[in-house]
Amino acid sequence: MLSIDFKNTFKVAKQHGLAQKDLQASKKDLQNLLSDVHSRNQNFYSIVDDTDELKRIAEVASHYKDILHVVVCGIGGSALGTICLQRSLQHLFQEQRKSKKVPQLYILDNIDPTMMVEILDVIDLPKTLFLIVSKSGTTPEPISQYMYFKNLIKKAKLNPEKHILFITDPEKGVLREIHEREGIPMVPHGPVGGRFSVLSSVGLTPATFAGMDTKSLLKGARDMRDLFLSTDAKKNLPFQLARAQYLLEKKGKTINVMMPYAQKLAFMADWYRQLLAESIGKEKTRSGKMVNVGITPVKALGTTDQHSQAQLYNEGPKDKLIMVLAVKNLHKTVPIPMLHKELPELQYMKGASFNKLIDVERIATCNAYTKYDVPNLTIHIDTVDAYHVGALFMLFEASIAFLGEFYNIDAFNQPGVELAKNLTRKNLSRA
Amino acid sequence: MLSIDFKNTFKVAKQHGLAQKDLQASKKDLQNLLSDVHSRNQNFYSIVDDTDELKRIAEVASHYKDILHVVVCGIGGSALGTICLQRSLQHLFQEQRKSKKVPQLYILDNIDPTMMVEILDVIDLPKTLFLIVSKSGTTPEPISQYMYFKNLIKKAKLNPEKHILFITDPEKGVLREIHEREGIPMVPHGPVGGRFSVLSSVGLTPATFAGMDTKSLLKGARDMRDLFLSTDAKKNLPFQLARAQYLLEKKGKTINVMMPYAQKLAFMADWYRQLLAESIGKEKTRSGKMVNVGITPVKALGTTDQHSQAQLYNEGPKDKLIMVLAVKNLHKTVPIPMLHKELPELQYMKGASFNKLIDVERIATCNAYTKYDVPNLTIHIDTVDAYHVGALFMLFEASIAFLGEFYNIDAFNQPGVELAKNLTRKNLSRA
Repeated sequence: MLSIDFKNTFKVAKQHGLAQKDLQASKKDLQNLLSDVHSRNQNFYSIVDDTDELKRIAEVASHYKDILHVVVCGIGGSALGTICLQRSLQHLFQEQRKSKKVPQLYILDNIDPTMMVEILDVIDLPKTLFLIVSKSGTTPEPISQYMYFKNLIKKAKLNPEKHILFITDPEKGVLREIHEREGIPMVPHGPVGGRFSVLSSVGLTPATFAGMDTKSLLKGARDMRDLFLSTDAKKNLPFQLARAQYLLEKKGKTINVMMPYAQKLAFMADWYRQLLAESIGKEKTRSGKMVNVGITPVKALGTTDQHSQAQLYNEGPKDKLIMVLAVKNLHKTVPIPMLHKELPELQYMKGASFNKLIDVERIATCNAYTKYDVPNLTIHIDTVDAYHVGALFMLFEASIAFLGEFYNIDAFNQPGVELAKNLTRKNLSRA
Repeated sequence: MLSIDFKNTFKVAKQHGLAQKDLQASKKDLQNLLSDVHSRNQNFYSIVDDTDELKRIAEVASHYKDILHVVVCGIGGSALGTICLQRSLQHLFQEQRKSKKVPQLYILDNIDPTMMVEILDVIDLPKTLFLIVSKSGTTPEPISQYMYFKNLIKKAKLNPEKHILFITDPEKGVLREIHEREGIPMVPHGPVGGRFSVLSSVGLTPATFAGMDTKSLLKGARDMRDLFLSTDAKKNLPFQLARAQYLLEKKGKTINVMMPYAQKLAFMADWYRQLLAESIGKEKTRSGKMVNVGITPVKALGTTDQHSQAQLYNEGPKDKLIMVLAVKNLHKTVPIPMLHKELPELQYMKGASFNKLIDVERIATCNAYTKYDVPNLTIHIDTVDAYHVGALFMLFEASIAFLGEFYNIDAFNQPGVELAKNLTRKNLSRA
């Protein structure tokens, strides 16, 4: 279902690459490593076993049969996973399609006032459900959006209980209080927040509204989770990936470029940007030693960014690991008709298809990286579907847990964002 | 119209920041620098004086009154500028708006076969114009797309001359040959290609079809060009910006994050990624010395990425300069209604607006960067309109020309992408 080809990391000059033994580990070592990971956080991978969650969400969703628009109000981890699901699993031009069988998802992960006004030009309030996602219930973006839309709902003499649905902590918090007091329904937020939440109600609820195959999504994640729990390093893909990232970072590859060769996977790279940046960018180790570690994630897209970024990757500083995502069956064959037999410059495309062209460009680009001593690896999946997207989510989440161990940092907190949050609170109330 | 606030680069610890004198230069020095820049390339800034171009394009566009969809087939510099124009100057949800006064732009900057098939579900072929953009006429992506769509046009018994328009080199190349032989119309490609082409026919033609204010776009660019030609360093914003980027790169800030606080400017960062990466990522100096220089551009968006990237920027390695784009008037005031006077946790939002909230978050986030010794500067514009977008394009293009001089590299070539292109050609014809 999913494999990783590390070959080009072995082929580049030694100081820029890896040796095969770098990705190996004894059963004993992997056992110890896994037991450390378990002691930090088991929720992020055990949630995929909770298949009852899907039934609970389906039950809630069944109450909103007439809805045409679902507006997700969330930011960061409450939005990026859902955006990735939307872009990976729906039609590329879903918004423009005339007849739709599922409600249109809009994900408002910003508070630009222009966005707050222009969204009203395209949604039909009586047919819209607002999904407010915040674990704590105090994140300024979704909460301000909630008050804004609720005000409009009330002005239109509609019932907020029918048009607003919370995803929030079932134990505490502001949104839970409002839910109890005013009867606005809620789906419980799972035990993992933010960047690890896509496989919980945070991602599964909008995915259910959009009619996605959430069962296969969790199945793909579970199958990868099983590899992650294996003490056989050959099978443990998250271990191998994390090991490669870590050892190459030690060799100066402080930037990881994720470059899918599939239009629908473009937003996987956006989701991953948060996961890697926020989990591994840390000032201190667990024991309080100042280290300022971190790997900077960069999003790229093939073939598009070959015409934009490849010049830098090849000739610039040797500070990058390129992680390509390749898809075996993007689509059934779409031939490129050779309409100009008279033009010798175009004959290299004779008999080609778009499928072949994107593949050949990908392989050529990776071979060029290798020639330039830029380490690159390729993650292969069979097709862009719910199963493989679930597997990718778990591959990356689990590899992050290993990275946390290698760096001896807490991969699950984010102390560095508190200062700006406090300043916002202080300055807004003063303004 | 546009100003740059460097204050926070002066406030951070000395080893991570700048001194005010770093951005100064004598009239003489600037004169020499400008004369070096002129000797490399004058086209990129002189094209904005060619206001007859707009008349020529308007004349061509007037032949396509019934068109509802304009599909731009181009990649890299032939797409990124147009995407930025589309996202900056059109409604945020233009695709979903019911009544449109202008044709819908689709920009196909990839060759994923899924995209090539799914686009057909949303365009109406008899009402569609395909704009094929390639200076050389041999770029595989637009050329394969051209043959694919032309084949469909012919199968539908439509006339290719009415549904295809080339933007290509008026002197030579494959598309020009086809234009002459088959009468498919063409708009001449300007003298600057790729990443410097947005202010030429490459960007102006789709902008004209989409009814954008191209006059103001060029006016903004011209006004900035005049600052760029000034030998007074205080006025020369492109000089100051380039100087800051260069000196901070020498202090280890090898990553430049462009972070607009405006949903509509998100794609300015994508356009800039190509400009910076491809221009400055170079293996050799002009005299052939091996240097492997480059600055890695990273796209971020405020407030969205505060919840995703800020942890890394603050606590991770000190390898970044953050370049914020701030907009004075994003929209007329959109108040946040305080619907929950009973909840003390939300009272900090009392009396606030989305305008205020995004501003306060931006300033708080920049102040946090500064506290963490992460150098950051803010480019202020009045509003997101054609004039200011034109000024931003020219600010960045001109600063790149200066960067080329500081590094003594050719900022206008891209030798590092040839290898993959050759491998593609070879392997495709062999396949």
